[in-house]
Amino acid sequence: MTTLRLSQIGELFLINHIRQQFKKKSKDVIVGIGDDAAVIKPADKDLLVTTDMMVEGVHFNPTFITPYQLGFKIVSVNVSDIYAMGGRPEYLLLNIAVNKDTTMTFVDRLFDGVKSAMNLYNIILIGGDLSSTNIMTLSATLIGYAKKCITRSGASIGDKIYITGNLGDSACGLELLKRIKRHVPIEKSSPPHPPLTKGGHRGVIRLRTLNSKLSEFGLSWKVVGPLLRKHLMPEARDSKRFIQHATAMIDISDGLLIDLSRLCDESKVGARIYIEDIPLSSKLKKTASYLGISPIKLALSGGEDYELLFTAPPDKKAKAICIGEIIKSDRVIIDRTGKETTFTPEGFQHFGIQR
Amino acid sequence: MTTLRLSQIGELFLINHIRQQFKKKSKDVIVGIGDDAAVIKPADKDLLVTTDMMVEGVHFNPTFITPYQLGFKIVSVNVSDIYAMGGRPEYLLLNIAVNKDTTMTFVDRLFDGVKSAMNLYNIILIGGDLSSTNIMTLSATLIGYAKKCITRSGASIGDKIYITGNLGDSACGLELLKRIKRHVPIEKSSPPHPPLTKGGHRGVIRLRTLNSKLSEFGLSWKVVGPLLRKHLMPEARDSKRFIQHATAMIDISDGLLIDLSRLCDESKVGARIYIEDIPLSSKLKKTASYLGISPIKLALSGGEDYELLFTAPPDKKAKAICIGEIIKSDRVIIDRTGKETTFTPEGFQHFGIQR
Repeated sequence: MTTLRLSQIGELFLINHIRQQFKKKSKDVIVGIGDDAAVIKPADKDLLVTTDMMVEGVHFNPTFITPYQLGFKIVSVNVSDIYAMGGRPEYLLLNIAVNKDTTMTFVDRLFDGVKSAMNLYNIILIGGDLSSTNIMTLSATLIGYAKKCITRSGASIGDKIYITGNLGDSACGLELLKRIKRHVPIEKSSPPHPPLTKGGHRGVIRLRTLNSKLSEFGLSWKVVGPLLRKHLMPEARDSKRFIQHATAMIDISDGLLIDLSRLCDESKVGARIYIEDIPLSSKLKKTASYLGISPIKLALSGGEDYELLFTAPPDKKAKAICIGEIIKSDRVIIDRTGKETTFTPEGFQHFGIQR
Repeated sequence: MTTLRLSQIGELFLINHIRQQFKKKSKDVIVGIGDDAAVIKPADKDLLVTTDMMVEGVHFNPTFITPYQLGFKIVSVNVSDIYAMGGRPEYLLLNIAVNKDTTMTFVDRLFDGVKSAMNLYNIILIGGDLSSTNIMTLSATLIGYAKKCITRSGASIGDKIYITGNLGDSACGLELLKRIKRHVPIEKSSPPHPPLTKGGHRGVIRLRTLNSKLSEFGLSWKVVGPLLRKHLMPEARDSKRFIQHATAMIDISDGLLIDLSRLCDESKVGARIYIEDIPLSSKLKKTASYLGISPIKLALSGGEDYELLFTAPPDKKAKAICIGEIIKSDRVIIDRTGKETTFTPEGFQHFGIQR
């Protein structure tokens, strides 16, 4: 069964196979997978809808990411968008186009990853579409609700700028993967150090082999594991704990400078950020140093950290890391010596910043 | 500008370019394109959500279909799913992955087609995603509302089976396109005979050339135009006028026998259909005869007509074409001599049916 390829199984069988696994109903889902459209009971809250695509060769490399990790990630990146609006994710639709020679094992692993993320975020799969193609393409739509939406456009001069966690880890994880060039055994959300017997589908590097490879760079699994996890299986940050204070919000998917610029564009304001306040993990600093990459560059311009960036009035104490403040129109980075440098979405004009 | 390729323009510019065109707001759309998620005001109706993908080489051939037609069609196929649930379509999200060498003209034409369909169905674009790829992939999600949903599972023994229009035209149109192997000038929904000056992007066959090509088969534009239109720019059928009677409903996207089988599966019933009651257009009969294809085979197993198939109690007079009735468990076709033949989703076991 599991070695069967999709071309031998057919679309109808596959849809039924998936439908069986996602039978879980909610009292609010009137019609789930399997009709012309899903039907959901009315709710007296604002409806949030987001959609994101992941295309092989553009957003992911199947040599680096396992189907499980990919399934997890496509859900997470969409959840991150709902959290970034101050909402709760609820209902998922998933369109998957894969090569007809794809095995059932691959598809099952992909859906295992989707399921794992669905459990983490407490969401339900209500629909989707399947197709063959030669370039794997995933497209997810996520529906959520919010009582109070936080857009990108609400930041005011004087607001503090916050982020929810370390930046640069994901981009550093990607740099590592480009060197490892194999699947790595990160599939369960806990414990962080996965047992060697897990994973096991073709292409996953053994931890022993990986560790010996890493030791060539002076690194170890303990150091790089969390960076790889941040890239392969990012977990979206829930905005619940600071939503009452946030005036504007965005998730950092394309990099701090790009996403902060977007927030500034929409709010028609500027921003001043302090380089020494941007949180870098010790693991990032150690790994980037071994790889010969600037950790601050990864933190400012690397994407896919899926941390939230938000603004809040200066008199509110938001439970997050303050990295700067909203100003009238300039967009500047302050280094530890107090020197100001203008930044643009593409980066900052001067890379010789001291930290 | 228009000859620029996407690789020269960049994603950010393109998103802004699209956003400008789709600024049209509805009082119910709190946040449209351009934030992490769209936000819609609550409505006291059941929420309908459907999603459909169209993949180059699987669902369409860019040699046969213009970007305008493709944009129109991806919207129509999703609208058809909402109508098939008895709903009203409202909000569209569109994910587009195209080659980075695609020109702005191509993208603009695609969105012109999307806009044309949006106007026809009175829907609003609220979000989407863009990516590069080497295999063009469109993925749309459509949100609608319904006061009363019609699923596939409500058909009862004795119910009459109805369809909303001719079957087979779309499949016949596709067969023609496989022979014409060019874009054909069908881009506006009216008049049906488009002026020669319209269209005009590379690859569209001139009507004069097409007519002389068609006359080789004894055909003319007047005969084949509507078949080509049904395939390239199908218009979804609104279920409003018979929704009060419908007990079960599905749209005919994969073919009458497949979709009727799905309705029977979900309703746990059988069906008896009368071959001579299935409406075939004179244009289909004429064209299929010239092409040497069985028109009834196209009507029973050809896909993409996007007519609605529904059931209604025998005492109700539904404004549609009755083609049979729901029975306990058998699935049979009756030919004009009264002979019964069992059918399966894949087709019917005996193709020698008299008509």
